[in-house]
Amino acid sequence: MTAPATALTLYIGNKNYSSWSMRPWVLMREHGIAFREVKLRFDSFAPDSEFKKTISHISPAGKVPVLVDGNLVIWDSLAIVEYLAERFAQRNLWPQPVAQRARARSICAEMHTGFTALRSALPMNIEARLPEAGAIAWRDKPALRRDMQRIEALCGELLRNHHGPFLFGEHFTIADAFYAPLVMRVQTYALPVSETVRGYVQAICASQGVAAWIEGALAEHDFVVSEEPYRLQAGSAHGD
Amino acid sequence: MTAPATALTLYIGNKNYSSWSMRPWVLMREHGIAFREVKLRFDSFAPDSEFKKTISHISPAGKVPVLVDGNLVIWDSLAIVEYLAERFAQRNLWPQPVAQRARARSICAEMHTGFTALRSALPMNIEARLPEAGAIAWRDKPALRRDMQRIEALCGELLRNHHGPFLFGEHFTIADAFYAPLVMRVQTYALPVSETVRGYVQAICASQGVAAWIEGALAEHDFVVSEEPYRLQAGSAHGD
Repeated sequence: MTAPATALTLYIGNKNYSSWSMRPWVLMREHGIAFREVKLRFDSFAPDSEFKKTISHISPAGKVPVLVDGNLVIWDSLAIVEYLAERFAQRNLWPQPVAQRARARSICAEMHTGFTALRSALPMNIEARLPEAGAIAWRDKPALRRDMQRIEALCGELLRNHHGPFLFGEHFTIADAFYAPLVMRVQTYALPVSETVRGYVQAICASQGVAAWIEGALAEHDFVVSEEPYRLQAGSAHGD
Repeated sequence: MTAPATALTLYIGNKNYSSWSMRPWVLMREHGIAFREVKLRFDSFAPDSEFKKTISHISPAGKVPVLVDGNLVIWDSLAIVEYLAERFAQRNLWPQPVAQRARARSICAEMHTGFTALRSALPMNIEARLPEAGAIAWRDKPALRRDMQRIEALCGELLRNHHGPFLFGEHFTIADAFYAPLVMRVQTYALPVSETVRGYVQAICASQGVAAWIEGALAEHDFVVSEEPYRLQAGSAHGD
């Protein structure tokens, strides 16, 4: 365990909903990197919301996650994980072979801007089980099916090449942290996946960082209407 | 000049329009990194377009830019520049002080997913001069004004702290490559900017990598309808 020279603080949103907050959190937790967590509840993203007012004092970009390390303020999940990969170099947060690292960065950058159909139609909602909403979106949205087809190809190839359980083999890397919220969506919306990807879903859910995040999400009991296109209240849903 | 062990090939789109292609291209050119350029014309982004058919043989993500280095295929501008920063470490493509590098990564990641109002309302179009389209968008789109306000704050602070001409001082870094397409938009749409940012616009346009890209864009004479919300044909525009 590395003793950081200064304590790290990670600002996050609701664990049940904030897929971007999840990424650096599970990465640090999985690798035993100590940090203090500060949760800023998502009330809304309007300029005068409590969330926006609070985060604006911390980060000029006005979004979570934000990592604070002494005087340093680092925002955006991708910049945070690159910072952590340098600061905790001995933990090999990226795969070490150059070719694997380049591939890992490519798929993380692809996730950072891509899969927009999936991300907008099926927002992360860890505590919910919404198989019917998932089936309807799958039926009606070709772009969502194309996103999942791409994810199948991408994850399938890596899992076969590196023999799992994670995308680059035995070691949980930044790439797994970046694809973990996708795994949450597969569970919530019961999306159809191959046997290979099913095994990955299980490995991710069983990893200690993700398991700890899920536990936190389930303990929140916080229903944020703007994040709930498919439920009127916790526990409600078509088909439940 | 580093002699690469294998030749680098960068696949790009139209220079007049492809802001994401521009970023690694100007970075490599500015730093004297030798590469072969392959341009794939934007006919359309429909699945059966020539562009999509050609790029699908090169990169599984189906987008430009793509960097090929021997057997390695790296996609997405951000993954490409991280790869280049490692491969050509002595060129200091990122700022060297840890705090500056973390800041540079934060603003590049912010550009990678953010400023969506600006990017969608005012697509890059280097050869065009569209001040009236710019003024109308400025008048009618508060989100665009907010994006520019954030850019003013972000660039202004860095330019003042590091005394310009570039975001992190004398040296053209990845951050400048990432903000260069924004500079092109300021020019095309005559967006209002402070004196400080005006000086940055001039410095970026005068840098050899960007100047060479602009020269290429002006030589294309290729009018792609899907990229032209404000013109019927080259040279046409309200107010011209």
